[in-house]
Amino acid sequence: MTTRIPIVEKILSANDRLALENNLKFDAAGVFAINIMASPGAGKTSLIEQTIKALGNRIRIGMINGDIATSFDADRASAAGAIAIQINTGGDCHLDAVMLQSALQQLELDKLDLVIVENVGNLVCPAEFKLGTHKNILVASIPEGDDKPYKYPGMYRGVDAVVINKMDLLPYVSFRTDFFKNGIETLNPGVEQFELSCKTGEGLSKWLDWVLVNIEKHGQDQKSTY
Amino acid sequence: MTTRIPIVEKILSANDRLALENNLKFDAAGVFAINIMASPGAGKTSLIEQTIKALGNRIRIGMINGDIATSFDADRASAAGAIAIQINTGGDCHLDAVMLQSALQQLELDKLDLVIVENVGNLVCPAEFKLGTHKNILVASIPEGDDKPYKYPGMYRGVDAVVINKMDLLPYVSFRTDFFKNGIETLNPGVEQFELSCKTGEGLSKWLDWVLVNIEKHGQDQKSTY
Repeated sequence: MTTRIPIVEKILSANDRLALENNLKFDAAGVFAINIMASPGAGKTSLIEQTIKALGNRIRIGMINGDIATSFDADRASAAGAIAIQINTGGDCHLDAVMLQSALQQLELDKLDLVIVENVGNLVCPAEFKLGTHKNILVASIPEGDDKPYKYPGMYRGVDAVVINKMDLLPYVSFRTDFFKNGIETLNPGVEQFELSCKTGEGLSKWLDWVLVNIEKHGQDQKSTY
Repeated sequence: MTTRIPIVEKILSANDRLALENNLKFDAAGVFAINIMASPGAGKTSLIEQTIKALGNRIRIGMINGDIATSFDADRASAAGAIAIQINTGGDCHLDAVMLQSALQQLELDKLDLVIVENVGNLVCPAEFKLGTHKNILVASIPEGDDKPYKYPGMYRGVDAVVINKMDLLPYVSFRTDFFKNGIETLNPGVEQFELSCKTGEGLSKWLDWVLVNIEKHGQDQKSTY
């Protein structure tokens, strides 16, 4: 059952080297980059749309979307006002650093403040492949159920923030908020959590503030490095 | 970007051979077997629970659950009245034929009519690994969004039936049923579709009838073979 492990390890270490290159490229251009991961349909694209609509007049945003097929999500980001690049992975179930490197060649990073990468909808595999972004975000959603941190620990353990989307559906589904949040806290103590609804806009401002604060902080860190 | 392809092909062909062995094992015991796949949280376990509760007094059901961590789902199936076996895949994002083979050794197949395999919650990878079951089922759910057939074509293309769960949430989310169903029909013309709600029970009877008819049909096919 474990014949694939040595191969995967080799790919991962090559991936990590390329992720570092991507990270240095972001830093050289003064760009803050985030990688957004989630199950299919948790609301990655909706969160990105709302972020672009709310912040697009204050900061310059580029969006890179990874999907197995279609350019639906990049089209939505583009319509919301960002420069959007589509990566179709074919059958691949996650983005990796090579794919991101290739997409970055199509973006004029010097003209951007923020790059949002939308990963393939998958609660398992994307967690294993670093891309070189500064922060990794997981979007969870209420109708997915409250047991997800326990069942997908790799994803919950590795992220810098958890956005809990579709809070507006809480009255209509069975969801134990305490059980869910205890699961997150056990795996990833103190991780940032944002409860919001991309549909109603409730709770979005706290997320937007966090994005702006992190862009600012990243800019200051970069200045102090040189 | 494609360096992994030859390796994956070798694994797949070994997997296919073992899937055939599993299939022969089911047939020799006169067991009908289904593989249930879905995104995390679409309602695989709820569908299995409802199926066990409704049919458990008429047929003998075994359940094999694949998850990265926890035995939550096998526990739910067991509480509903089935003999349930848990496979924890570690980090693996799908079940494969080897894992199923190993789980089958723990089930007394001769004493069962139906085996339900619950795959890891993932809308990409499980579609690529045959298990040896007779039918592959995809559980979709309304809050996941209507664009999923277009974005995850590999999964929608390869299945024998699509269960559309959480129909009770239709009034509360934006979901174009025609757009969704056109996507399914394009990828998988004529595929069986069941619109239901595991929460309210609405629409379940058509699904249960389909399961019973297929068990019956499989039994007849087996008899005519010998």
